[in-house]
Amino acid sequence: MNAPASNLTINGTRLWDSLMALASIGATPKGGVCRLALTDLDKQGRDLVVSWAREAGLSITTDKIGNVFMRRAGRNNALPPIATGSHIDTQPTGGKFDGNYGVLAGIEVIRTLNDHNIETEAPVEVCFWTNEEGSRFVPVMMGSGVFAKAFSLETAYAAKDTTGATVRDELARIGYIGDQEPGDHPLGAYFEAHIEQGPVLEDADITIGVVTGVLGLRWYDCVVTGMEAHAGPTPMALRKDALQIATKIMQETVAIALRYPPYGRGTVGMVHVHPNSRNVIPGQVKFSIDLRNVDSTRLDAMDGEIKAFVKQCADESGLGISLEQVSYFPPCPFEEGCVTAVREGAKNLGFSLMDVVSGAGHDAVYMARLAPAGMIFVPCKDGISHNEIEDAKPEHLEAGCNVLLHAMLDRAKRV
Amino acid sequence: MNAPASNLTINGTRLWDSLMALASIGATPKGGVCRLALTDLDKQGRDLVVSWAREAGLSITTDKIGNVFMRRAGRNNALPPIATGSHIDTQPTGGKFDGNYGVLAGIEVIRTLNDHNIETEAPVEVCFWTNEEGSRFVPVMMGSGVFAKAFSLETAYAAKDTTGATVRDELARIGYIGDQEPGDHPLGAYFEAHIEQGPVLEDADITIGVVTGVLGLRWYDCVVTGMEAHAGPTPMALRKDALQIATKIMQETVAIALRYPPYGRGTVGMVHVHPNSRNVIPGQVKFSIDLRNVDSTRLDAMDGEIKAFVKQCADESGLGISLEQVSYFPPCPFEEGCVTAVREGAKNLGFSLMDVVSGAGHDAVYMARLAPAGMIFVPCKDGISHNEIEDAKPEHLEAGCNVLLHAMLDRAKRV
Repeated sequence: MNAPASNLTINGTRLWDSLMALASIGATPKGGVCRLALTDLDKQGRDLVVSWAREAGLSITTDKIGNVFMRRAGRNNALPPIATGSHIDTQPTGGKFDGNYGVLAGIEVIRTLNDHNIETEAPVEVCFWTNEEGSRFVPVMMGSGVFAKAFSLETAYAAKDTTGATVRDELARIGYIGDQEPGDHPLGAYFEAHIEQGPVLEDADITIGVVTGVLGLRWYDCVVTGMEAHAGPTPMALRKDALQIATKIMQETVAIALRYPPYGRGTVGMVHVHPNSRNVIPGQVKFSIDLRNVDSTRLDAMDGEIKAFVKQCADESGLGISLEQVSYFPPCPFEEGCVTAVREGAKNLGFSLMDVVSGAGHDAVYMARLAPAGMIFVPCKDGISHNEIEDAKPEHLEAGCNVLLHAMLDRAKRV
Repeated sequence: MNAPASNLTINGTRLWDSLMALASIGATPKGGVCRLALTDLDKQGRDLVVSWAREAGLSITTDKIGNVFMRRAGRNNALPPIATGSHIDTQPTGGKFDGNYGVLAGIEVIRTLNDHNIETEAPVEVCFWTNEEGSRFVPVMMGSGVFAKAFSLETAYAAKDTTGATVRDELARIGYIGDQEPGDHPLGAYFEAHIEQGPVLEDADITIGVVTGVLGLRWYDCVVTGMEAHAGPTPMALRKDALQIATKIMQETVAIALRYPPYGRGTVGMVHVHPNSRNVIPGQVKFSIDLRNVDSTRLDAMDGEIKAFVKQCADESGLGISLEQVSYFPPCPFEEGCVTAVREGAKNLGFSLMDVVSGAGHDAVYMARLAPAGMIFVPCKDGISHNEIEDAKPEHLEAGCNVLLHAMLDRAKRV
């Protein structure tokens, strides 16, 4: 990693200290963080970030789903703000960086602009979105989804956790129901810095991932129904072995992904075998299929292949097979201008860089429906996230924040 | 099915009535039976069978593991008895015929000999073995296993059910600990009539299965260890997908069985995927492998093939794979004389017949270690057993009992 080629840089130590301070709220013994959405700990985390924003002179707006927008005025405040952000809720056994990095990198950008008395044409905003993780309340990416009108405020409000508490009640309880209608808040552009949550950058020894888009995904539930029978007395020819057919489809799921490189992905993550007894031929197998790709043409082709293969298996075996799509996110290419701003920022700062795609969803996917959007990835150790051992190097986090600073300045127009 | 060609036949109605009377003890609402080993219901069932034996003039011996031997004297009582039997304990959701048929067919043979004042050279015995099912206490085939010294009386006595009750205590409680040392009871030959518990006879529309032997089996636990990772951000080339390798081995398990026809059998019945989450690449998969065949040469060859394939998968994938054999029963061919007695009996009676093997274990497997042994199978509906809907036709049960009668007379030598 070369030294930054630009004079203007953020304060990496201050960024790290802020990350560690926020990570102390809900810290787990194994070094991770458990700060589930809309809990008392989430309130403490939100309050801390908001206090830092006030110290930095930002004005605060909260919307009805609890998304928080922290604005630094520009020269022309009629312009929509150039925004950045992410989320601060975590998984039950989450890490210190997922989401939190994107929000605190935004705060650090603001502090740097303040340090250097830099004025921008458009206002600059840092925001955090409610319940991105979806661990306590589904759906995931709730705050940004309501903001982008992917689903209604009422739907989000009615979501319950396992104890029966609703999003609306919990938002009210922690004091984060604002006045603003979600989405009633124009954005000029949106950037999000994030740890990669995958192994690509580390594997290639690259500091900055210029995210060109987010993979689309199709999730399916597949159920193969045969006939359970004793493993001993039933000859091979008289069997209706549901697992034997199911494992063919599981193999094909991976084979399909390999036929659509470089971004095709196919995963079977969940399998339930019935009756799941050592000496009984399985009568039914239920499993999940997860297919992803970078553009709709390829993802649709993968969809066609899995459907055709399942039909072929059903025809050949005589077994009942159902394949139901249970979730769909279309591929999300980021706006070329934002992608270029990230790429040029990394180049000008002298960091190693490569174009990457995001395999996982982020709040930026919903923002891309409303405004030009882009993302910056930095490596995380062993590609591990959603885990208490999630880790990232301070110099990588600092580098990503510097790229964010320059991409935002490019877009907000430094005066 | 033709009419019997022999004059001497059992009373099919009496056999059926006895089956239904015994099935009423522990009858379930769905038409099955729940009479677990060494429960109060088992005691009631044992008492009923013993009362019938006394009515038929038989002398009763009980051994220390609760096996019961009911003897009809022969002309030469120094000869070891020609025995038949099975078990009367059932699965929790068991049927009316599994085991019970073999015991009551024996009682019906005795009643028929009595009806016709037939004397035999050797004594004739009916026995029932303790805890064949293994549902409440493991191991399965406990009474016959102790009798054959496959494991010790102490081991069996110490076995506990889920409440902590031991076999010894429960045997004592229901009054079925006898004086005789298990195995201290020579047998001249042993026959066992049983429902097939598989689909072969019904599929071929055959009344009598002449059982030539019991398949040997090897049970394995296989564990594939990869690396769990997010399904979205992890490119195919950087994955260590444990399920992708495990499903190859599952497919091969079936392929191996198909390469060793006609008796090769390969089953994966139990699968546990970790962490079993829709969007996480499985980090570990544990599953069972069940291989069976009719002779040791072929079963050993199958064993060699699965081991070689697992090694090849480990070498090619770089993933950790363990394969541990957890159970082994060698193939058990039945004595040619007993098999012939069954075959000739069925032929002389005019029944359709075919040679079959037993895929499942039976008490006869242990008896075959001690004496010439053979089995008679009759069809059961849809091949279903260990299920409350287990069913068999009265005429098939009657036919099997007639074959048993003539096979035993052949061996015990009608005077």
